[in-house]
Amino acid sequence: MKSTLHTTLLSRACYLLGSLALISLMSCSGTDESSHTSTLESNNKKPNFLWLISEDNSKHFLKLYDQAGASMPMVEELAEQGLIFDNAFSNAPVCSTARSTLATGAYGPRIGTQNHRTAEPIELPNGFTPFSESLKNAGYYTTNNFKSDYNFEGLDRVWHQSKSGAYWRDRTPNQPFFHVQSWKLTHEHTLHFPESDIQNNPTRHAPSKVDLSPIYPDTEAFRYTQARYLDHHQNIDGEMNKVLDMLKEDGELENTFIFYFGDHGGVLPASKGYIFERGINVPLIVRVPKNFRHLLSKDMQQPNNTRVDGFVSFIDFAPTLLKLAGLESAEYHDGEAFLGKNIDLKSLNKRDVTYSHADRFDEKSDLVRAVRKDNLKYIRNYQPFYSDGLFAEYRYRQYVYAEWKSLFQQGKLNQVQSAFFKPKSPEALYDIANDPQETTNLAALPKYQAQLVELRSMLQDEIKSWPDLGFYPESELLAQHTPKGVTAVGFGQANKTHIAGLIDIADLQLVPYQQAKAKLRQLLKSADQWQRYWALITLSSFGKQAEEFNQHIIQLAKSDSSIHVKARAIEFLGLNKVIDPVKPLSELIANTNNQFEQLQLLNIATNLHEQVNAVFVRPAVNTWPAPDKSSASYRGDRFFDVWFNVRWDYISDKI
Amino acid sequence: MKSTLHTTLLSRACYLLGSLALISLMSCSGTDESSHTSTLESNNKKPNFLWLISEDNSKHFLKLYDQAGASMPMVEELAEQGLIFDNAFSNAPVCSTARSTLATGAYGPRIGTQNHRTAEPIELPNGFTPFSESLKNAGYYTTNNFKSDYNFEGLDRVWHQSKSGAYWRDRTPNQPFFHVQSWKLTHEHTLHFPESDIQNNPTRHAPSKVDLSPIYPDTEAFRYTQARYLDHHQNIDGEMNKVLDMLKEDGELENTFIFYFGDHGGVLPASKGYIFERGINVPLIVRVPKNFRHLLSKDMQQPNNTRVDGFVSFIDFAPTLLKLAGLESAEYHDGEAFLGKNIDLKSLNKRDVTYSHADRFDEKSDLVRAVRKDNLKYIRNYQPFYSDGLFAEYRYRQYVYAEWKSLFQQGKLNQVQSAFFKPKSPEALYDIANDPQETTNLAALPKYQAQLVELRSMLQDEIKSWPDLGFYPESELLAQHTPKGVTAVGFGQANKTHIAGLIDIADLQLVPYQQAKAKLRQLLKSADQWQRYWALITLSSFGKQAEEFNQHIIQLAKSDSSIHVKARAIEFLGLNKVIDPVKPLSELIANTNNQFEQLQLLNIATNLHEQVNAVFVRPAVNTWPAPDKSSASYRGDRFFDVWFNVRWDYISDKI
Repeated sequence: MKSTLHTTLLSRACYLLGSLALISLMSCSGTDESSHTSTLESNNKKPNFLWLISEDNSKHFLKLYDQAGASMPMVEELAEQGLIFDNAFSNAPVCSTARSTLATGAYGPRIGTQNHRTAEPIELPNGFTPFSESLKNAGYYTTNNFKSDYNFEGLDRVWHQSKSGAYWRDRTPNQPFFHVQSWKLTHEHTLHFPESDIQNNPTRHAPSKVDLSPIYPDTEAFRYTQARYLDHHQNIDGEMNKVLDMLKEDGELENTFIFYFGDHGGVLPASKGYIFERGINVPLIVRVPKNFRHLLSKDMQQPNNTRVDGFVSFIDFAPTLLKLAGLESAEYHDGEAFLGKNIDLKSLNKRDVTYSHADRFDEKSDLVRAVRKDNLKYIRNYQPFYSDGLFAEYRYRQYVYAEWKSLFQQGKLNQVQSAFFKPKSPEALYDIANDPQETTNLAALPKYQAQLVELRSMLQDEIKSWPDLGFYPESELLAQHTPKGVTAVGFGQANKTHIAGLIDIADLQLVPYQQAKAKLRQLLKSADQWQRYWALITLSSFGKQAEEFNQHIIQLAKSDSSIHVKARAIEFLGLNKVIDPVKPLSELIANTNNQFEQLQLLNIATNLHEQVNAVFVRPAVNTWPAPDKSSASYRGDRFFDVWFNVRWDYISDKI
Repeated sequence: MKSTLHTTLLSRACYLLGSLALISLMSCSGTDESSHTSTLESNNKKPNFLWLISEDNSKHFLKLYDQAGASMPMVEELAEQGLIFDNAFSNAPVCSTARSTLATGAYGPRIGTQNHRTAEPIELPNGFTPFSESLKNAGYYTTNNFKSDYNFEGLDRVWHQSKSGAYWRDRTPNQPFFHVQSWKLTHEHTLHFPESDIQNNPTRHAPSKVDLSPIYPDTEAFRYTQARYLDHHQNIDGEMNKVLDMLKEDGELENTFIFYFGDHGGVLPASKGYIFERGINVPLIVRVPKNFRHLLSKDMQQPNNTRVDGFVSFIDFAPTLLKLAGLESAEYHDGEAFLGKNIDLKSLNKRDVTYSHADRFDEKSDLVRAVRKDNLKYIRNYQPFYSDGLFAEYRYRQYVYAEWKSLFQQGKLNQVQSAFFKPKSPEALYDIANDPQETTNLAALPKYQAQLVELRSMLQDEIKSWPDLGFYPESELLAQHTPKGVTAVGFGQANKTHIAGLIDIADLQLVPYQQAKAKLRQLLKSADQWQRYWALITLSSFGKQAEEFNQHIIQLAKSDSSIHVKARAIEFLGLNKVIDPVKPLSELIANTNNQFEQLQLLNIATNLHEQVNAVFVRPAVNTWPAPDKSSASYRGDRFFDVWFNVRWDYISDKI
């Protein structure tokens, strides 16, 4: 049976490739794969691709990027025949979201995959093909080992195998392959160790020597954690090396483009989950195989620890692999290839822009967008009255997360160390070259005004062009895109103007209150609940300045027809201490059976708990469904169950 | 105390009138009120106004308008020194709605008073003063005896007295007055007699001689009912005459403009509640007092059964009285004065346009607008899949209503008689001169296309200019206008463009399905629930033609975030027999505690009950609050209670 299947696949591969009119000379028999393959032959062959992914680590923990980083011999070996990207970015700072962009080549907020996790996977439009499926359709053998945490539907079509133990070895002889493998040894959970480890479980790296970010308090625990995380980098390198050995054994080393990268930044506090550089600037090494050097521009054909300064991000990965495989990028790809015959290093190094986004990650919701251009980074916090440190169960399992917060609560932190736990500015501007840890917001400085305005405008234009689906509550996005024939993408396209209008309302946060208020007054009267919704968020960003709206907003909280508007009205009133938000918000939560609505309401409650000490009363009976193992939605329901439990315990002072 | 009050009022009147610089010569002492009052004196005096209102009758029951009508000696006496308006219209065919326009001079759907009744009275904007309050502020003594069924707030400011037994006699000597009195002897309830009356309670008018509309089956009961209603006209005339006698006794006859009119049409079936001519074309006689003839144009100063052909409607009454009182119309008045020095009969008779509207009346909801221009009448049914005969408890108490429906159900009616119980056309065009009972829809005839397009366009422009608040569900309108500082008017103005967009969506009903469907497909994906809502209503108007949308709409019914959209989706699916609507619609009803939402859902259920025999199961426990006598909302809650009870009984086949 197996050989029949292989034959079929081979025929199919030949048919498909033939039909693309790219390989009229190609023989379907085996070809010599030594480094002496003739140019003609290798022109007709496809390179393999191997992705080696370490989870949750920003580039800053590798000696290849930072003096104080960990040695990673395998990664360094790749670099010896490879390109080292100094500015490679995950567009999102969390797993399933980042991964969804890798797979599709599209920005998450454009296609609806921006939330982590999406219990209801997003349907992609017809013809919107994950690039690994395109490779598969073009004859590649595609395998994934084995993380499959994506936020869209249709994963079964993408891989020949996707499981632990999947490798390229089951393919038809000489069939080109694409193999993805992730390792968890640097994953967040590896820092969920007990406090006692600090004494009892010494690290190889010396805690005293780590280069601690100035945003953290310089405690023994932080130093230990960072040292331990450096150790994990060494560990993961050893694990990854085993796959490299397999490749060598199989004689495929010089037929294979090897990409080593992190799936997003992390994973000390305030990194994973946040679009600071430490949350998105990942290590990326691409080793160029001798037999496929000709696919690159001349100046990149023989790389040797060659530094690339140009900006690349996860939207660019799909176009890059497709190009190297001789396939066309799709129109829906948001990025562009960064490797290829016509892409020389000089022009690549001129690329200096990247966009990033953060939405709901686990039970914690926010809405943050950023653009970095060269060394300036602009961050837009659309809900500035939420602190970055807003409680999230999984994050605070890390000992130093809890320690950090505790020190904040005790008033023991300086301003830079405290910022994480305080409401944010609507916009921030950082000079990354001189302030890589983004501690000093330059947005108010007159000398930066021109650049501030330029970056603000770039970001506005970019997210309007997607358009950015994050401007609707998740429950609404899911409700509207679910109907057959309406994908999230289609929903966005149908509402592009509408979304642009919402972005403009949010951007009233950036003008003085006196200038914004007349417009906001009008918007509160809009028949469009999303306009009222965003007007309220914007009013909350003005805080007590907007108190003349109190009476009006009290009425909205009581009698608006939209639960979303009511919730945002209660939020405004609660944050400004006009009313006690506990009762009305609890009623809203009790009166919806939409899990995503409940989740957002609980996020609002959590912020109120932290900002104004609102203490809620956990209901005697859960208002969310118990996860049912026999249900198709079990996986999602299980996440929700945890999130609801922990939110309720937290806001009712039980934890 | 009383005299002190009178003195105060008198002083105030003098101050106010003086401040208007209209009466510098006026003495505050008594003046001779005989018919010999000098021109100078009467120039400085204000006329009185007396409104005599018979409830629920169109002009067609008066001999003054129709050969077969009833003699009404008092009305005929007024006409002898008066103007007989052949084309006077209530803009709405039901009490509180019509009355609200009389009081404010504004179209109901513009100011939010279009629904009957509004348990939550609509707040008028600041400075939006009912004209009787303006008269009061200008020194008039204002009394109402005693119907106070209006849909807006602030009635306590309008009248010196508003109760049974209120008259002008408590005013300061010689204070001008405005007195309103309504009589119920022609009110709908007077036709709620038992079937046995037909035999046992003979009428003065001969049933055999009544001129029955061709829309009714020619039954004994219908003839009896119409004869009895003619009797009621005689009765009411005698009652009204008593007030006229009081006026004569007080020597105020020739100081008083007397308006006799019906508050809207009625009241055999298919009149009150509908904007057919029989629902809105009311009798109107204005008797001109000798002492104030000079306030009119020369050609109307000595009227004697003088016919006025020009169109006037309730929006014009406020400006007319203000003008006669020497006061300015307000900017917010939608109409214009029809009596005054500069308004000659010839120009008045050129007025040939009137607009009307029908929305929720009691528990029955629909959305119908009309324009009549000269003899052509254009009716726009925005929910054509609702029959006019949709069940409404109060209406069907009339024996012939029930008989008519029963004959329809037995298949015993001709086409003209059946139309009332069938779904409607989105638009209808009638030639009123030749077809006063609106039996023959000319909209499809090629020769009327130019006129159809002209009237359609007039109506579109008019309702967009208001803008028409009826395009939002009532629950939404109330929820959005409630907040302090946002009146219904303000809400409309803030959403004028939005409403115009909804009207355009509804008007896709008027183009062929194949032309409309691409746009509708897009609209179903809109982030704006009201766009989806109207797209669904429009799709329902296309019936099974739109079946390609079934799957999409099933998803909306399941998972849309808007209860309104869900309901309209279920409606589409139910009407087209794609699904059994009972369970999903019942769930929606059970899951909202908003009375107005429940009411609208029950209206949808009622239509499904009638159109596709959907039988619902009345809940064991009511889902609406029991009326509580101690509650401020008791009056409204009592209405709701009846409406809910009867709707549930009806749709669950209990009645």
